[in-house]
Amino acid sequence: MPGKRVHMKQVKLKHYAPAVLKETDMEVKSSEITLEVEEGSQDVLVKNFYLSCDPYMRHRLTGLDYSHHPSFKIGQVLEGFGVSKVVESANPNFKPGDYVSSWTKWEEYSVIPKGERLTIIDPSFAPLSYYLGALGMPGFTAYVGIYEILKPKKGETIFVSAASGAVGQMVGQLAREAGLYVVGSAGSQEKIDLLRNKLGYDAAFNYKEEEDHVAALKKYCPRGIDMYFENVGGKTLDAVIDNMNPFGRIAVCGLISQFGKEKKDGVSNLYKFISARITMQGFLQSDHLHLMPKFMELMAGYLKANKLVYFEDFADGLDNAPNAFCRMLSGSKIGKQIITIAKD
Amino acid sequence: MPGKRVHMKQVKLKHYAPAVLKETDMEVKSSEITLEVEEGSQDVLVKNFYLSCDPYMRHRLTGLDYSHHPSFKIGQVLEGFGVSKVVESANPNFKPGDYVSSWTKWEEYSVIPKGERLTIIDPSFAPLSYYLGALGMPGFTAYVGIYEILKPKKGETIFVSAASGAVGQMVGQLAREAGLYVVGSAGSQEKIDLLRNKLGYDAAFNYKEEEDHVAALKKYCPRGIDMYFENVGGKTLDAVIDNMNPFGRIAVCGLISQFGKEKKDGVSNLYKFISARITMQGFLQSDHLHLMPKFMELMAGYLKANKLVYFEDFADGLDNAPNAFCRMLSGSKIGKQIITIAKD
Ligand SMILES: NC(=O)c1ccc[n+]([C@@H]2O[C@H](COP(=O)([O-])OP(=O)(O)OC[C@H]3O[C@@H](n4cnc5c(N)ncnc54)[C@H](OP(=O)(O)O)[C@@H]3O)[C@@H](O)[C@H]2O)c1
Ligand SMILES: NC(=O)c1ccc[n+]([C@@H]2O[C@H](COP(=O)([O-])OP(=O)(O)OC[C@H]3O[C@@H](n4cnc5c(N)ncnc54)[C@H](OP(=O)(O)O)[C@@H]3O)[C@@H](O)[C@H]2O)c1
Repeated sequence: MPGKRVHMKQVKLKHYAPAVLKETDMEVKSSEITLEVEEGSQDVLVKNFYLSCDPYMRHRLTGLDYSHHPSFKIGQVLEGFGVSKVVESANPNFKPGDYVSSWTKWEEYSVIPKGERLTIIDPSFAPLSYYLGALGMPGFTAYVGIYEILKPKKGETIFVSAASGAVGQMVGQLAREAGLYVVGSAGSQEKIDLLRNKLGYDAAFNYKEEEDHVAALKKYCPRGIDMYFENVGGKTLDAVIDNMNPFGRIAVCGLISQFGKEKKDGVSNLYKFISARITMQGFLQSDHLHLMPKFMELMAGYLKANKLVYFEDFADGLDNAPNAFCRMLSGSKIGKQIITIAKD
Repeated sequence: MPGKRVHMKQVKLKHYAPAVLKETDMEVKSSEITLEVEEGSQDVLVKNFYLSCDPYMRHRLTGLDYSHHPSFKIGQVLEGFGVSKVVESANPNFKPGDYVSSWTKWEEYSVIPKGERLTIIDPSFAPLSYYLGALGMPGFTAYVGIYEILKPKKGETIFVSAASGAVGQMVGQLAREAGLYVVGSAGSQEKIDLLRNKLGYDAAFNYKEEEDHVAALKKYCPRGIDMYFENVGGKTLDAVIDNMNPFGRIAVCGLISQFGKEKKDGVSNLYKFISARITMQGFLQSDHLHLMPKFMELMAGYLKANKLVYFEDFADGLDNAPNAFCRMLSGSKIGKQIITIAKD
């Protein structure tokens, strides 16, 4: 196949979607493409196995450049985190057959210029797809949020929104291991059951079924909230602040509920920041990549001790990718949303 | 006078004022009172010289207990920070003639039970009234906000709201000494002139004359904002966040613009917290009192080097106290608002 013209499927942006994203704003097209790895180029040709659906990609489908994630152009092939296998390599760091976590395109094969952002991974360490979730960017985000931003003390209460998601389920497990009282919210009874029974949450509730968020948090966090791992924003944040203990900390990881809203929900009870001496800190996992080895070491320990549980939701093939991405955003999936393209 | 019945003026709360405070919500009354210091009681009788008008006292005139400052009761004599002189003492730590910074009542003489919260001060060190401002709680608040919360790095830009006030003028001077680019806002041209010409601010603007706060901040902070010393809240805060540099910090000291508002202004551009990795931290100076000696040492250095400038606005006598307190809130005063009761 290298150097050859092939027909392959790609997922492209069809319409900018600044407010509401529909499946039809993306399209799956088969194109004739030359897959070439020129000698001396350092490029690497990979076969993509798994693609990651991550909320931040939503910003890249807007046509707007307010974010640090510049928008895709119309007709551009989507790109993001993946797990791939090396097919051909003009780069001495990679050889055919290597499994890599990748920064790749939503297509069957990709040429990775200079092999940039490829990292060799060990398929015997954990399921390959874990490198997009538990052992990948979302898991690392949970680690950074907890250890670098929130800095927990044993016995404290942490509340986590979008608790069953790619990041949330890792926050829960890390928090439990840190000796915290762990409370989460998510959008369906099935997710609440998972949180309570499989993911080590001490308490969990379906935020869609609670009229009064302040009262719900008071009930599920009987000793108040010391730390909030913020994934959603909006009225949840305001209700959390109302329930915060003195010297409470908020790690602002994501604000998915606010996406595309013309008029954002504000945080209104700022006075509580003073009276309770609250600290709220936004962060990006990518600022902390030097900690990746420490994180991986911790995860190795968890895996060895059979401590790590991780739920994934696989969509089959690129044809289902636009739908999978929308399901991830709406919460119709359970756990980490992944698109499977190939398995070997 | 000790042990004697005297007639003296006191300022009392007349009506609870949860929303808008009027002078007539306080009243000045002359009462017959016994001033007694019983032997062995540890009590101290003081003559009050200066009283401090501080924004937090506003919470104590509401009849509401949402704050860590419980409300005064109707008919209760107001209390707060003062500078006083010891008249009689049953406490070995104080003797007649000592000058003290005090936690006292809004009246001519006060009996301080067990001499609590009295600190002997040196009248040759600085003007006595400075112990209510530059060298007192407001100055210390500026110090804590800058050094414990914002942690400045030389060359950074700091923006300060209510910049000419009791706290703000100290923030400006500490910031200048820390090698920062210092920008402030206040509510009149006279204050802007003070900031620019006397208080070491690099730039300053009248927020009442700016339609577009985001644009004003862009203009006056050409290299963006690294730190915000927040005294007012509301739309200023939102506009600051819009102009924040990566890793920007916000010290939430006060939110005076929101006082008594039924529907508070929210912070709406929270997404910027993530993309710019902003940290916002509320604080109370009273958590940091162990640093008071360090602060006083710094101030001694400033005084010695003739570096400290401090503007005060004196209201004459208890009769003018309700008016002075309202002037402080509205911004009709310039600098630190003080009530003078006696000078010797
Ligand atoms: N700062 C960083 O470096 C960084 C890195 C990675 C991720 N993030 C952020 O972390 C958050 C979680 O990411 P993830 O990958 O773990 O995604 P995820 O939780 O697996 O998927 C997003 C979930 O958010 C929930 N949600 C959607 N709309 C909502 C709304 N209006 N109110 C409440 N919940 C809503 C849905 O689950 P429910 O069933 O619970 O509603 C949905 O499945 C996102 O905000 C993301 O942007 C930040
Ligand atoms: N956290 C702590 O430990 C602590 C300790 C002390 C003080 N504080 C807070 O620090 C802030 C400053 O206190 P201070 O003693 O220095 O008071 P101040 O600045 O001397 O007096 C308050 C000033 O706020 C300004 N202001 C009033 N309403 C405003 C509005 N709607 N928008 C913008 N500005 C408005 C006015 O000046 P302009 O002419 O500029 O409008 C007014 O003179 C207050 O919020 C106070 O509560 C906090």
